[in-house]
Amino acid sequence: MDGSFFGDLLQSIADRGRALVGLPRGEPAGGDLIGLCEALLSGRGEASGVALAQEILDGYAALAPAERNRFFTTLAERFGPDHDRLRRAISSYTAAPGDRLATELHKAAEPRRQELFRRLNLAPGGTQHLVAMREEALRNAKSIPGFDAVDADFAHLFSSWFNRGFLVLRRIDWTTPANILQKIIRYEAVHAIHDWEDLRRRLEPPDRRCFAFFHPRLNDEPLIFVEVALTGHIAGSIAEVLSEDRTPIAPDKASTAIFYSISNCQEGLRGISFGNFLIKQVVQELSRELPGLRTFVTLSPVPGFAGWLAKERRREDGLMADDEKERLKALDGEGGHRDQAALEALQPLLLSVAARYFLKAQGANGRPVDPVARFHLGNGARLERINAMGDRSPKGLAQAHGLMVNYLYDLRHIERNHEAYAAAGTVAASSAVQRLAAQKPVPPKPSKAKADLPALPPPTPAEP
Amino acid sequence: MDGSFFGDLLQSIADRGRALVGLPRGEPAGGDLIGLCEALLSGRGEASGVALAQEILDGYAALAPAERNRFFTTLAERFGPDHDRLRRAISSYTAAPGDRLATELHKAAEPRRQELFRRLNLAPGGTQHLVAMREEALRNAKSIPGFDAVDADFAHLFSSWFNRGFLVLRRIDWTTPANILQKIIRYEAVHAIHDWEDLRRRLEPPDRRCFAFFHPRLNDEPLIFVEVALTGHIAGSIAEVLSEDRTPIAPDKASTAIFYSISNCQEGLRGISFGNFLIKQVVQELSRELPGLRTFVTLSPVPGFAGWLAKERRREDGLMADDEKERLKALDGEGGHRDQAALEALQPLLLSVAARYFLKAQGANGRPVDPVARFHLGNGARLERINAMGDRSPKGLAQAHGLMVNYLYDLRHIERNHEAYAAAGTVAASSAVQRLAAQKPVPPKPSKAKADLPALPPPTPAEP
Amino acid sequence: MDGSFFGDLLQSIADRGRALVGLPRGEPAGGDLIGLCEALLSGRGEASGVALAQEILDGYAALAPAERNRFFTTLAERFGPDHDRLRRAISSYTAAPGDRLATELHKAAEPRRQELFRRLNLAPGGTQHLVAMREEALRNAKSIPGFDAVDADFAHLFSSWFNRGFLVLRRIDWTTPANILQKIIRYEAVHAIHDWEDLRRRLEPPDRRCFAFFHPRLNDEPLIFVEVALTGHIAGSIAEVLSEDRTPIAPDKASTAIFYSISNCQEGLRGISFGNFLIKQVVQELSRELPGLRTFVTLSPVPGFAGWLAKERRREDGLMADDEKERLKALDGEGGHRDQAALEALQPLLLSVAARYFLKAQGANGRPVDPVARFHLGNGARLERINAMGDRSPKGLAQAHGLMVNYLYDLRHIERNHEAYAAAGTVAASSAVQRLAAQKPVPPKPSKAKADLPALPPPTPAEP
Amino acid sequence: MDGSFFGDLLQSIADRGRALVGLPRGEPAGGDLIGLCEALLSGRGEASGVALAQEILDGYAALAPAERNRFFTTLAERFGPDHDRLRRAISSYTAAPGDRLATELHKAAEPRRQELFRRLNLAPGGTQHLVAMREEALRNAKSIPGFDAVDADFAHLFSSWFNRGFLVLRRIDWTTPANILQKIIRYEAVHAIHDWEDLRRRLEPPDRRCFAFFHPRLNDEPLIFVEVALTGHIAGSIAEVLSEDRTPIAPDKASTAIFYSISNCQEGLRGISFGNFLIKQVVQELSRELPGLRTFVTLSPVPGFAGWLAKERRREDGLMADDEKERLKALDGEGGHRDQAALEALQPLLLSVAARYFLKAQGANGRPVDPVARFHLGNGARLERINAMGDRSPKGLAQAHGLMVNYLYDLRHIERNHEAYAAAGTVAASSAVQRLAAQKPVPPKPSKAKADLPALPPPTPAEP
Repeated sequence: MDGSFFGDLLQSIADRGRALVGLPRGEPAGGDLIGLCEALLSGRGEASGVALAQEILDGYAALAPAERNRFFTTLAERFGPDHDRLRRAISSYTAAPGDRLATELHKAAEPRRQELFRRLNLAPGGTQHLVAMREEALRNAKSIPGFDAVDADFAHLFSSWFNRGFLVLRRIDWTTPANILQKIIRYEAVHAIHDWEDLRRRLEPPDRRCFAFFHPRLNDEPLIFVEVALTGHIAGSIAEVLSEDRTPIAPDKASTAIFYSISNCQEGLRGISFGNFLIKQVVQELSRELPGLRTFVTLSPVPGFAGWLAKERRREDGLMADDEKERLKALDGEGGHRDQAALEALQPLLLSVAARYFLKAQGANGRPVDPVARFHLGNGARLERINAMGDRSPKGLAQAHGLMVNYLYDLRHIERNHEAYAAAGTVAASSAVQRLAAQKPVPPKPSKAKADLPALPPPTPAEP
Repeated sequence: MDGSFFGDLLQSIADRGRALVGLPRGEPAGGDLIGLCEALLSGRGEASGVALAQEILDGYAALAPAERNRFFTTLAERFGPDHDRLRRAISSYTAAPGDRLATELHKAAEPRRQELFRRLNLAPGGTQHLVAMREEALRNAKSIPGFDAVDADFAHLFSSWFNRGFLVLRRIDWTTPANILQKIIRYEAVHAIHDWEDLRRRLEPPDRRCFAFFHPRLNDEPLIFVEVALTGHIAGSIAEVLSEDRTPIAPDKASTAIFYSISNCQEGLRGISFGNFLIKQVVQELSRELPGLRTFVTLSPVPGFAGWLAKERRREDGLMADDEKERLKALDGEGGHRDQAALEALQPLLLSVAARYFLKAQGANGRPVDPVARFHLGNGARLERINAMGDRSPKGLAQAHGLMVNYLYDLRHIERNHEAYAAAGTVAASSAVQRLAAQKPVPPKPSKAKADLPALPPPTPAEP
Repeated sequence: MDGSFFGDLLQSIADRGRALVGLPRGEPAGGDLIGLCEALLSGRGEASGVALAQEILDGYAALAPAERNRFFTTLAERFGPDHDRLRRAISSYTAAPGDRLATELHKAAEPRRQELFRRLNLAPGGTQHLVAMREEALRNAKSIPGFDAVDADFAHLFSSWFNRGFLVLRRIDWTTPANILQKIIRYEAVHAIHDWEDLRRRLEPPDRRCFAFFHPRLNDEPLIFVEVALTGHIAGSIAEVLSEDRTPIAPDKASTAIFYSISNCQEGLRGISFGNFLIKQVVQELSRELPGLRTFVTLSPVPGFAGWLAKERRREDGLMADDEKERLKALDGEGGHRDQAALEALQPLLLSVAARYFLKAQGANGRPVDPVARFHLGNGARLERINAMGDRSPKGLAQAHGLMVNYLYDLRHIERNHEAYAAAGTVAASSAVQRLAAQKPVPPKPSKAKADLPALPPPTPAEP
Repeated sequence: MDGSFFGDLLQSIADRGRALVGLPRGEPAGGDLIGLCEALLSGRGEASGVALAQEILDGYAALAPAERNRFFTTLAERFGPDHDRLRRAISSYTAAPGDRLATELHKAAEPRRQELFRRLNLAPGGTQHLVAMREEALRNAKSIPGFDAVDADFAHLFSSWFNRGFLVLRRIDWTTPANILQKIIRYEAVHAIHDWEDLRRRLEPPDRRCFAFFHPRLNDEPLIFVEVALTGHIAGSIAEVLSEDRTPIAPDKASTAIFYSISNCQEGLRGISFGNFLIKQVVQELSRELPGLRTFVTLSPVPGFAGWLAKERRREDGLMADDEKERLKALDGEGGHRDQAALEALQPLLLSVAARYFLKAQGANGRPVDPVARFHLGNGARLERINAMGDRSPKGLAQAHGLMVNYLYDLRHIERNHEAYAAAGTVAASSAVQRLAAQKPVPPKPSKAKADLPALPPPTPAEP
């Protein structure tokens, strides 16, 4: 029968792989996946490596969750380095140290898992399956004895395979295939995209941009993406950026690009950092397309502020004065942190305390407490402005009492900023933010604060 | 000025990289490439890694040949593993051996060059530049002290980056862009393509196929390609396959696919083997497209035969009888090996001796002498047929007295063949070839041979 | 200034076009569009025809609605044929009739609008603008004296430009760009697509297909599309086809392709028929992709049935018996036509009457009353089956008392069916439908009908 | 059998078409093509129009050359307008003249061939077949009684289908598919491309451009293409432009784009003019890509000059003085027109006479004698410069005594130039050319001319 020759052929190859480990034809590989893995690593499986790798991935897919955990544990226990070989290599090297013998040491110390994963990568769709495999292992890490060793090998290989050199930057817009857009909706992690209409508003207007990194082997899977608004000034609130009834501006009239959302997409690539490269490449792309752009900033959340503040208010010798602590009691009590009038009255104080949070509060390693700050400052960005009431959503009020922050990417200074930060934890900040951190805020007159209610307290002004 | 902001920006980044190593602005990086390399490896260059990597690659491109050799030698001498760290890792591991401490050992033993090359790969076009860099180093290996260590690191990284999983198979035909076809002409290494018309004859007819592997980062550069003829039988001579005035057959009438030429394209990827995967994937592609195909064979040269035969004729206790040696004297003397009448008369003898060459002659490692045979047998193919006067070109006569060989790729048996070959050097061969190797050839009657001249002696018949 | 040379140049061309008709630079073309049209038709505008056409289309876009109507009326009045030239051509022809002089007659009788539209088509995006122009004219036809003449010229040119030979069939699926999918949602005219999730259910499952015709010059605009379900049998109800929780079948297991929705997209192409070609080409595409498909049917609405039935019930000497009319009174009264129990009880009767509706009722031209029937029968399809309660939506109940119909496309018979229909209005119908039309239905026993309520009366069975 | 259902189906459709005209199944349509054409035009063939059109095109392809000529003649004789219908339409119109009745007249006067061709266009590849059909008819025009009528219908439809609005401009470069490049080589009509290497030199260097118009239905067939050199000045000789060892310049440094070759590709589209649109669109493309370009000129042959000159020398009261005629005798005699020394000495005289040739010599219709001049002047270009010894090839010497000409496309003036030319035959020319035409050349002193030999006489200088 036509067509069946090819089917027969594929079946034969698979059967042959099974025969290698004594599996009967047609039965699921089940518990003997480990045997197939050994076969793949051995010289034996070499000629049909692709088919064997495929067989293992199929076998894995057929496992029950508990069996998968056992599979990972076995990988941890039995696919580490070959200690006998390693001991011999140590002896040789110790006897006559030098580059050449170090190389054998290097090889001997490599966990056998790494070669196993490299060979599994031969299968069609191999990379995608391995990334999914790690994602699952990460999810069940606590149930997998030996998880750390397996995960380290995944991470090592992925950081080589997903080297920035292999990534492809693609613009995402309203002509992008729907299956990719669906993933953008799903993966957005900062300001949720509610539906396709919401998505369209972020992609279709002429003053919006979105870019993602893709990898040639994860074809329709974005790795990370950033959403950008082109504007005439540095926006301080997300509502302003996402407003449904704003009038778009002509892109060549824009002076400022605001990166208002960056989301990682692949949990299985955790720890492989793309954000730094993405932001910088998008800055270059936009500079090229729109020579009128002069300012590249983020509009970022401050996820650690409210938690830090709660603790700080309880500290004796902290960064806050007693009267400041006293005034912040307005935030306490049922619904207090959602009381917008109270919040607005407190904004000058909150801005001042937040400046101290960024510039003076430090974690154990001498770096800022805020994770988003660590990311951007580590990239060499500068803390440009702190914005009162930038995010009035429940999440924004709960995590940061409404504050949002702009980090400025000035490519001419990122290296110097990065170095100072890397060497000494120095936080690059605009002089406005520095002044804020230095000042001792005068308590606002309540009556005046009330009169001011509709108007927001001014944010820290951007530098000229 | 419009556009200059972006230009300024790039210049600033580059300048900053230079400042890191104390280079004056605008001067060629010259001899201080090594300083830039150290900067790239250090934490310092992290924020502008892409720009710094670019700078180094540009600097390398500007070096004179002798300076490049010195650069490689410096890489060999100063970018090996960190021996202090390695000694400490050995102490720790020896005190308490285990997977975790082996990992640190593994990292400590890694030459610093590997991380350097990974970071150079960040630059636009980085992979292509690194491959070209290795190609150049290979060409000048003898002038580069320490070359082997550098080359090993290139090879290690390339074999991961050019993992078969990342390769893309593309069909090459007459609608392929000319810049790629030009490379096919240049890289063809087995049966030279004389001009574009010759190329067209190998690509355009309906019974011809050509496939190449590409890598996403070496966009228009084929890595390896194979040329295929679709036929109704196993062809035994290259003249038959490439004949200008043959009548093409309808592809769906073909029973046989003949792989008559495989060429590697990238000298800089030497040692990274693609041929095995290429052949097998092309077999699958063709099976799917043309279910009528039943037989997949090569038509291959025998590059080692004439050299081996010359030595064998001088051996006392070799594989040949004295009368055989006597009769082969017809090949000697001025132009003897090009005397077609003499050759034709000797074909039965040559076939028989060649069968012994493949099945009985062995190199030091117990494998066949012929490099092409080692490649295909190692892939799990079977030696199917030896063809008299398959290649009458000067090269074909010089290297193999005109013989050509068919290797059969039967995917159902390649694993078994490969295993037997890998374990014991067993050569898979058709029974016809085995009979040939076993037989004691009867000297042909000269008069009859003469009458037969126009007709070729029959090749070893293919199995049913 | 860079870039401005090109800008100047375009402005110069446009100015020149304006100068031709004495328009001042920079002012909107406004009421003098007609002057520009004359210039475009005259020899004068030839060298810069593209720019002039662009200018006219821009000018049209800037008109207020009432001005546009006047513009069309002027086209009707002043851009008809040249009657002087026509009279001369008639004289010549009458004096010496023959093909050659008929040609001049043909040219002279052509309305000048046709050449005008051809030249407007030179502008970038010209075709799209002309289609939109006609769409607008159609919408305001009643306010445009002379509309018919203008519209006939649009229709004549479009039917040549949108010749089936120029159309491109493309599959629409979940990897189609969102901007096109958005139009599919908007243009669906039979079974509304409620949202993107509803769309995804019609495109993504393996047993769904959607195809559209596109025209190279209307790039992202589908002209017509059809939605197809692959099934194991001829479905009789739309609920079954669109059910959210059905389990998809493997496409190569499907025996039947059901065309359950066909929608025209471009109002401006009214009267240019694509549906016939679309269905037949999709039948061919699917046959090629899935050789297991044997049956190609529609699942179609019966938009004219309820209206016809209401009239028929009032006719004395019509197609219905008195007792039948009596029984149908159950449909009358408030909400009667939505009373599903009543409807189900009446199904055998409705099926029988519907068969008469299709086979015996005739409009003025001797063709079936139902427009959907006329379309499919005119294409050569056969009325295969009438389904009770195939569409329980308010629209389905209102227009057809829930009935749906399958038309069978058997390419082997479409020509014969078409011919018989074209020549004599003969309706091709399965023998089951023919029997239905012939039978005098026995009133169902009420008690039994009640017991049967959950089960639907069987539809007319498909032929073996 | 799988697959055969679809095969059967196509066969059925074809058979059905044959049955319509009483052809037995499987026999070539042969002489009954005309019957099939009638069927296609009649209502009968409507349902399977695509299949029937395909059948006719296949039948045509199978005809012998003489039968094809007969086929065309039959089209001429039997597929003209319907004269009965036309007479009736004339009566109606004459009785009550008006737009509406003119429309019926228009329809009745249309040759039935036009509808036939439109329906043949339904077949897959229909347009391509029809273009090839016309090409063949053109080639054999003299053997086809009635050819003109058939050809006029082809031309009418093609000019609508190949409306500039449907054409797609594509850049041709060294990444263009080889099958298209092969056609560029074949179709080049001005300066022959000798081989692929010659082609590469015209496409690959950064200062070369080539653009072609394509039509969506003639996919890989260029319709017309132009080759462009980017330079720093207006080149006056083709040798300079095509020189193999010139150093390319950076495109953004170029001030001038020279259109040095324009070739029509499709003989079957004769009379449908694309050149005007092509040049102007390429001017726009290049202006946009390279804002530094200021001058767009051709470097064109003067195909009519030598022939005109030969006649002019024999005229009594022509444009030349007797002493001029006398001096030109140096061109006569064996090889005289190839005597470069003689030619160089005569250049000042030839330039002067050529200026008169362009500005004063007129054909019957009051237009310049030179066909290339008529094309560019008709497009609105200006005669910018006449170049001595611009083309030293045998063809260049034979047709124009080595002269070449630059026509300037200044989009700001093309409309005015075109109008003046269209209205009164006014030739737009630079003042330098006008002066040349006005001057009475002084005979050069022979001795000086000799000394000057290596240096060319200066061409007419370009305007500032």
